[in-house]
Amino acid sequence: MAAPTIRIRGLYGIPEVLPGTNLADEIIKAFNSCKVRGENNKRDPIILVVAQKVVSKSEGRLVHLDRVIPSVQARKWARKYQKDPRIVEVVLQQASRVVRMERGIIIVETHHGYVCANGGVDASNAPCGTVVLLPQDPDRSARRLRRRLARGLHRPVAVVISDSFGRPWRLGITNVALGVAGLSPFIDCRGQVDSYGRLLQATLIAVADELAAAAELVMGKTSGIPVAVIEGFVGLSAAGTGKDLIRPEKEDLFR
Amino acid sequence: MAAPTIRIRGLYGIPEVLPGTNLADEIIKAFNSCKVRGENNKRDPIILVVAQKVVSKSEGRLVHLDRVIPSVQARKWARKYQKDPRIVEVVLQQASRVVRMERGIIIVETHHGYVCANGGVDASNAPCGTVVLLPQDPDRSARRLRRRLARGLHRPVAVVISDSFGRPWRLGITNVALGVAGLSPFIDCRGQVDSYGRLLQATLIAVADELAAAAELVMGKTSGIPVAVIEGFVGLSAAGTGKDLIRPEKEDLFR
Repeated sequence: MAAPTIRIRGLYGIPEVLPGTNLADEIIKAFNSCKVRGENNKRDPIILVVAQKVVSKSEGRLVHLDRVIPSVQARKWARKYQKDPRIVEVVLQQASRVVRMERGIIIVETHHGYVCANGGVDASNAPCGTVVLLPQDPDRSARRLRRRLARGLHRPVAVVISDSFGRPWRLGITNVALGVAGLSPFIDCRGQVDSYGRLLQATLIAVADELAAAAELVMGKTSGIPVAVIEGFVGLSAAGTGKDLIRPEKEDLFR
Repeated sequence: MAAPTIRIRGLYGIPEVLPGTNLADEIIKAFNSCKVRGENNKRDPIILVVAQKVVSKSEGRLVHLDRVIPSVQARKWARKYQKDPRIVEVVLQQASRVVRMERGIIIVETHHGYVCANGGVDASNAPCGTVVLLPQDPDRSARRLRRRLARGLHRPVAVVISDSFGRPWRLGITNVALGVAGLSPFIDCRGQVDSYGRLLQATLIAVADELAAAAELVMGKTSGIPVAVIEGFVGLSAAGTGKDLIRPEKEDLFR
């Protein structure tokens, strides 16, 4: 039997993305100019995992820090932990709720519902004097990219917009899926039986997060590869959104 | 420039694993009999991601439920949420601390330091009347497997022992790394500069968890593929353990 095989490659050649950059066009150009050894059928569906940072930048989700007036709370906190009060202010503006604010760490729930450090506000790879916000609606961004990419690449495309988040209990950050278009974020094994014929109970696999994590292995933080191409993943027919991955508050024991 | 490419394939043909099964031998047999289209250099290092379940079973980490005498606490809890009191007892025995025990969910810190639902105790894919525990020391299991696999496969091998854990804030389970041998669980970007020349701050990427997550995409829960082979990942020289991935309690805001 042929083994199921997934191939993940980083897309080189995407130039610096700025507000107004047509990101889909740049991805299509880079995709078409990347030489690929032994590529699968050119009509097979692919998943494009796109780093949130370039999506946000192309959508103009930048805040110029010299236009930010920090609140009293932001100034107080920033002074205590030697932070930039303007960045603290931007972080607090992203929050629908502050989940933890201690030891110099701010973990908030964003207006999207993500619980993450600094509300996803990031200064790395941002033009000088600015910080980058998460996309307003990552699922909408994913749908828009997907439409354009499918048209330009003449093949079925799914899109995952990824960002790397920390997590409780385990060290380090891992990539997760924010926006999703063209695939279900889950594989639902509930109702399937194990090799002993027993019904699987609570087995909902967050495949969109696993696809994002897999893509990170070829993307890196400083190597200028903001997009990965995943081929060979089966299960692309179902639909869903990245929002589905957010645990409803009433089912969450840690909020 | 050639794009960095990672290939992940599931290993078919590993038979039912039981206490005493020589898991390394079975993996070597399956590896050698899997036909691979266009494989890379046969001397290139590979990563074998092995599901915790088969490691535990080969090591005899099974508990026969008819030998378990539930405590008063276990019986009370089980009655309230319609659980098997013997399984609740086994779960509580894995705990060095109970983190949450409400709404029918038990999240404990195991003696290894993992914070996870049911202390990793699992009835799925376990022989009838038994449950499977996590390996006593997943890093030791990984080191042992690695030694045997490297010898049998005549190539550099790294091993990740994986299990799927839930997480706060996000729905669904994702694969993480429990035991690690032959690779660093992190890529440490601290000290590197972004494309604007700014120092990256808190960027410690948990690659072992991302490798485990990527492997899950070809493994599945019911498809009988407990091992995945990852080729093409660079960064295999450094060493480290799975234990390194556990966030120290004093740095954890959610314990």
